[in-house]
Amino acid sequence: MTEAETDTPAEVDLGDLVREGGAAELAAYVEELDARETARAICELEPEEQTMLLSRLGPEQAGEVLETLPDVTATEAIESLPAETAAAILHELPSDDQADLYKSLDSIDAAAILAELDSDEAERITELASYPDDTAGGLLATEVVALRDIASVGRTVERLRGDADRLRRLDIQYAYVVAKGRRLVGVLRLRDLLLAEDDTKLETIMIREPLSIPADMPLAELETFFDDHAFLGVPVVDGEGRLVGAVSRVAVDEATQDQATSDYRRSMGVVVEELRTMPTLRRSRLRLAWLSINIVLNVVAASVIAAYQETLSQVITLAVFLPIISDMSGCSGNQAVAVSMRELSLGLIRPNEWLRVWGKEAAVGVINGLALGLLIGLVSGFYDGNVWMGLVVGSALAANTLLAVLLGGVLPLALKQMKVDPALASGPILTTVTDMCGFFLVLSLAALMISRLVG
Amino acid sequence: MTEAETDTPAEVDLGDLVREGGAAELAAYVEELDARETARAICELEPEEQTMLLSRLGPEQAGEVLETLPDVTATEAIESLPAETAAAILHELPSDDQADLYKSLDSIDAAAILAELDSDEAERITELASYPDDTAGGLLATEVVALRDIASVGRTVERLRGDADRLRRLDIQYAYVVAKGRRLVGVLRLRDLLLAEDDTKLETIMIREPLSIPADMPLAELETFFDDHAFLGVPVVDGEGRLVGAVSRVAVDEATQDQATSDYRRSMGVVVEELRTMPTLRRSRLRLAWLSINIVLNVVAASVIAAYQETLSQVITLAVFLPIISDMSGCSGNQAVAVSMRELSLGLIRPNEWLRVWGKEAAVGVINGLALGLLIGLVSGFYDGNVWMGLVVGSALAANTLLAVLLGGVLPLALKQMKVDPALASGPILTTVTDMCGFFLVLSLAALMISRLVG
Repeated sequence: MTEAETDTPAEVDLGDLVREGGAAELAAYVEELDARETARAICELEPEEQTMLLSRLGPEQAGEVLETLPDVTATEAIESLPAETAAAILHELPSDDQADLYKSLDSIDAAAILAELDSDEAERITELASYPDDTAGGLLATEVVALRDIASVGRTVERLRGDADRLRRLDIQYAYVVAKGRRLVGVLRLRDLLLAEDDTKLETIMIREPLSIPADMPLAELETFFDDHAFLGVPVVDGEGRLVGAVSRVAVDEATQDQATSDYRRSMGVVVEELRTMPTLRRSRLRLAWLSINIVLNVVAASVIAAYQETLSQVITLAVFLPIISDMSGCSGNQAVAVSMRELSLGLIRPNEWLRVWGKEAAVGVINGLALGLLIGLVSGFYDGNVWMGLVVGSALAANTLLAVLLGGVLPLALKQMKVDPALASGPILTTVTDMCGFFLVLSLAALMISRLVG
Repeated sequence: MTEAETDTPAEVDLGDLVREGGAAELAAYVEELDARETARAICELEPEEQTMLLSRLGPEQAGEVLETLPDVTATEAIESLPAETAAAILHELPSDDQADLYKSLDSIDAAAILAELDSDEAERITELASYPDDTAGGLLATEVVALRDIASVGRTVERLRGDADRLRRLDIQYAYVVAKGRRLVGVLRLRDLLLAEDDTKLETIMIREPLSIPADMPLAELETFFDDHAFLGVPVVDGEGRLVGAVSRVAVDEATQDQATSDYRRSMGVVVEELRTMPTLRRSRLRLAWLSINIVLNVVAASVIAAYQETLSQVITLAVFLPIISDMSGCSGNQAVAVSMRELSLGLIRPNEWLRVWGKEAAVGVINGLALGLLIGLVSGFYDGNVWMGLVVGSALAANTLLAVLLGGVLPLALKQMKVDPALASGPILTTVTDMCGFFLVLSLAALMISRLVG
């Protein structure tokens, strides 16, 4: 029943078709694929095959194909095309995608492509591209229906019927009502025209003083906005109240979702979106950027062990438990980080509410510290056959667990206040501090008790 | 301009108002708050204040408030209300939220609340609740406009105008056209009625053989569906082709987003959504569930060190580098996990493509292994003043990095094939294996070279 169930015609290879098949055959093949299959098939092609495919498809279909691709792949494909072909494809994209793609292009390519477009379109693209991503300006589409306030329902319906094809294609549900000078004065669902009499003026049925947002509204506020209002879109106005475009709920949801999935990847140090189809050296470099910071932090933390090497050589059993203390404290701390990240994103805590977080984390930290400390204390005590060993290792983990959740709980808040990305930086900072404290606690306790441990 | 900019009236405390204020004053205060502020203010109340607030607000407003709350908080609040009040509030919610809330209720509370609703509504809720979450059935809403195929545009418009209030409130854009027995035969955008002549029959302007989906379609396929089709919603049919309801793009986007953010939390062992307003013992138990598995795995990994305690006591410097090898291998492996998770979610790899992933990861693993191994080899060699120490530690980290990315790359694929949640299980499995291999590599190499290291 649905296209999602259609099987890919597996016997044909897209690469062969690109190099050897006819243009019509190629177009028909690509048409058959759904968005995921298209992305997958194209990511598997060599870069020159990707270029050839886009050139051979014709601008409209090439534009559709481009929208299915991961951003990096789309950018690279466009950059490899002749400026004229690239411009023709760019022309087919919705305005917000045009601006996103334009922003990600190399500046020389971008200028060459822009020169091929007509000057109105080029100007609109550079203007849209000037807004930061993740603001209303970065997400807005300029494809809106703007109607004059003094028009009648009958005349308007007639006009819209004449333009029915374009409207159907754009899938627009709202019209914005403007006074002279494109000043936004009302909003109208197209459907409401249906429910009104022909001779009514738009200004009498429109929703007056419509909610609108400024182009610099950040994504977090847009989310709140759509949480509060069951709108599918909201008009964006400039400083003088003139209609610039509209931001759709779908665009906001997608931007939020991108941010959420990338929180996960960034916490693992995958900062730039990596695809396995990228060149090996580039992938390696992207991952090493974060790993090399991490290894330095690791060496710093290990210097605490080095400082206590004398104690360690007398009580070698401790070496078995050092990695456990390091790993478990990191886990406990990261749980507190994850809870704070969630409460921040839900707006349930503010970045300055450290005391509240500390109160809540202290309680959990004491209980979990005692539980984990008792467990590892028993294991180490039995392993070493010395109750003092259990006491040293167990109390070090207990104290360090408390410390880890206290730090983990407020770290995302502090980083957010300092405008540092909490998903990226929380992990390395947390584990370095908890490693150092954990190593110090267990080794300095052991040094104090050395006569009991060696005895 | 926007409500998001309105400040919270900070001088009034919601808790005081709930206990002492008038009902009208309370209603007006809550009305002023946006969704985030409402959630925040209510989460800060004591449980009995939450209950009092919902009872005093009146079912409609209480329903609106409930929709802003995190799921656990909403469930607990409803469970604490008398069944009659709870039922009145449930009645006000959209059908998909009704079913979700019903599913999360304790079975005794659920039965009591159901008994207070009229039997049609109760039956519909239990039916919707019978579908698994994250399938079309779990996301569908039953509030759809169904029109008969043989009606005329004029008659239909008249009928809809009579029902304009309800339609505006439901914010419905599509009507589904059904033949006898509620069999789905077409789809119609309400807007299209506007663009057609009065005497046309719906069956001539409707889109025939409309795309529809079965109630058991999983979320991943729904995502693909909405990627491929610029629809705002899609009708859901039962086995006999009868219209059951519709799934909206917004519902699918929200479910996907929930899944993505919780990938992040699950990877940190925050499995059930934790809020700091929950009782301490419960939060502690939720976190300990994952920590206690992790500590056992850690002890297993550390047993490798214990087995080489003899070697370690001869070359105590190794103890400084064991935690570094453990942590760095975990980081490298987790990067490969994160890239695979992303490629799986984008549909760019299939769970059985181990060889392709291995080919790609091997290349990066060799380069990054050499880079990190060289770095840590230099550090350890200089620290110990022995080039053999550098060779042992560096080559162990190099080899273990390669191993970590090979394992990390395929682990999410394997777990997905085994229907185990990859976000939750990848981390602990990966670090246990890479710890064991890392400890084994460095300590067994050291044992082989013991004469050079001790000399």
